[in-house]
Amino acid sequence: VRIAVDAMGGDHAPAEIIEGAVAAAVGDGIPVMLVGAEKTITDELKRYRYPGDKVTIVHAPEVISMDDHPASAVRRKRDSSLVAATRLVKEGAAAAIISAGNTGAQMAAALLILGRLPGVERPGIATVIPSPMGPKVLIDSGANVDSKAGHLVRFAYMGSLYASRVLHAGNRAPRPSTAPIHWMGIRVTGGRGGPRVALLSVGSEPTKGSEAVIEAHQILAQAGDLNFVGNIEGRDFLSADVDVIVCDGFVGNVALKLVEGVVFTLTGMIGREIRRNPLRMLGGMLVKPAFGSLYRQFDYATYGGAPLLGVNGLSVICHGSSRAPAIRNAIRFAERAAQENIIECLSKG
Amino acid sequence: VRIAVDAMGGDHAPAEIIEGAVAAAVGDGIPVMLVGAEKTITDELKRYRYPGDKVTIVHAPEVISMDDHPASAVRRKRDSSLVAATRLVKEGAAAAIISAGNTGAQMAAALLILGRLPGVERPGIATVIPSPMGPKVLIDSGANVDSKAGHLVRFAYMGSLYASRVLHAGNRAPRPSTAPIHWMGIRVTGGRGGPRVALLSVGSEPTKGSEAVIEAHQILAQAGDLNFVGNIEGRDFLSADVDVIVCDGFVGNVALKLVEGVVFTLTGMIGREIRRNPLRMLGGMLVKPAFGSLYRQFDYATYGGAPLLGVNGLSVICHGSSRAPAIRNAIRFAERAAQENIIECLSKG
Repeated sequence: VRIAVDAMGGDHAPAEIIEGAVAAAVGDGIPVMLVGAEKTITDELKRYRYPGDKVTIVHAPEVISMDDHPASAVRRKRDSSLVAATRLVKEGAAAAIISAGNTGAQMAAALLILGRLPGVERPGIATVIPSPMGPKVLIDSGANVDSKAGHLVRFAYMGSLYASRVLHAGNRAPRPSTAPIHWMGIRVTGGRGGPRVALLSVGSEPTKGSEAVIEAHQILAQAGDLNFVGNIEGRDFLSADVDVIVCDGFVGNVALKLVEGVVFTLTGMIGREIRRNPLRMLGGMLVKPAFGSLYRQFDYATYGGAPLLGVNGLSVICHGSSRAPAIRNAIRFAERAAQENIIECLSKG
Repeated sequence: VRIAVDAMGGDHAPAEIIEGAVAAAVGDGIPVMLVGAEKTITDELKRYRYPGDKVTIVHAPEVISMDDHPASAVRRKRDSSLVAATRLVKEGAAAAIISAGNTGAQMAAALLILGRLPGVERPGIATVIPSPMGPKVLIDSGANVDSKAGHLVRFAYMGSLYASRVLHAGNRAPRPSTAPIHWMGIRVTGGRGGPRVALLSVGSEPTKGSEAVIEAHQILAQAGDLNFVGNIEGRDFLSADVDVIVCDGFVGNVALKLVEGVVFTLTGMIGREIRRNPLRMLGGMLVKPAFGSLYRQFDYATYGGAPLLGVNGLSVICHGSSRAPAIRNAIRFAERAAQENIIECLSKG
């Protein structure tokens, strides 16, 4: 399978994007299609040695910037790297598109070009978050606001499927007792032994939460084909032993960025406190490796990108600040998702 | 002014509650009324020396537990410490009630006994959150779900008033250029020089957010009598230079508990990493004081309780796990709010 890479999107495009793509091609043997201004890409590629059949260039001279209005940019800039890369997926030339550019535009391109899967009203972004208990899937981490109960229920199913097929496949041993179960006619690993799915709410009781969350809880609690474990609260966000956290995109976006901000603020405050006197600084040097392994555990780059689940094709959203290792990981993730036939699994019914 | 203290509510009631109340009476000279089972309170009080006129007991034998259904418990248990303490405020015998017990029941008691202020459809909980930039007010941190734009706008005004009257009074020098402005006929410190009020959303642009947030943004942007600075995102939650963060109670509750959980999880992970080898442990001992001062900056106990703003009387909600220092601080906070006539300010119009 080939992965289409939007070479022009992201804070560090094109250099870091192309470096990451070449690393995936050389190090992981994944064929990549670099989509963007041909001259720019060719110039960048001069810095690397790579097998010619693994790295191809698709010329698309236009660029969608971070300030562009998503939907109208997608309609207007038909020769942009993002639109061209998404079209490669639609046409079957690529198995997935990854981009670190304008997220709104990427979602708009996915909706307009790839279209929704049958029965999916609102696709959701499935982001893998690192935690002491291992990686979890957060869905929706920002595609929608004002989600209704039905949307949350759909996120739960899509998140469960993604966790069982893509996440557990490589990162974590499957849980015991994964009796095969069926969802909408297809066999998925779910039910009692499948990924543990939780709703993010303001209390553990089924009666706590917004109207949509309370209604979604009722539906999920009766769903025999999903391993629904109930509500979790904000304080359990990182520590809960669950595989999938389901919430509205407004809440998910705030939560995800909050974790990022708190980690950043806290480590900054610790650093300032440590630099206040020489003894602490000595201690700081000794404990530095501990922070290093903590950072690695919390590094979003490990999990690369977040797919928009519910559209008819793989569109993987990367953090705007992604550097080469994050791009490489996103490409590996996209390849794994493609090989697991995640879209086919999601669409059968 | 006297402060009514629910002696029976909280994880560490009655011992820590009574210890905190006595500390406020002795150390801060604030008269307290301990409300609960007389015998229990008398026994606890034997451990302390205190001026008899500063500590009085109001007998209320019933207890509302954490498992009680809020509204029905308030209606049924009329001789509970919580209901009796709230009634003392209604009757004018106390200037405020503080409790670390069942939060839902405390809100129900406030709504049923004290009633709403004119024009307030939904009261909101105003929680002070510590941050590197100084304390901020988060409103609503959990009283409501599914808030409409009008509710968010009301939270913004109540939060601004609370920040200017209570928070800045003691914790922070007032900002320059606090030209007095008027809101609903009363003079408040607001406008350009007043507390900086922000909406929590998923992007800084006015067009980003849920329907309610977008509409509230439009209204607040045109409000000349409020220092509205626009949207902030989750990653700015701690670091933004604002005084008031406005959001729906579902989002506020998740955010607040998330910060708590992330701080707890991170420090636990750092500790485990440090204990992995002896050199790191030595370093850990040297940097420990740095963590100590960090903890103090982040200690929720510093800011004591969170008032339910919008009801006709001061009802201050304390964290269920509050110990004596948190209770003492909540009593000091309640006294300051009472002396600043915060309810009168909120109700005039």
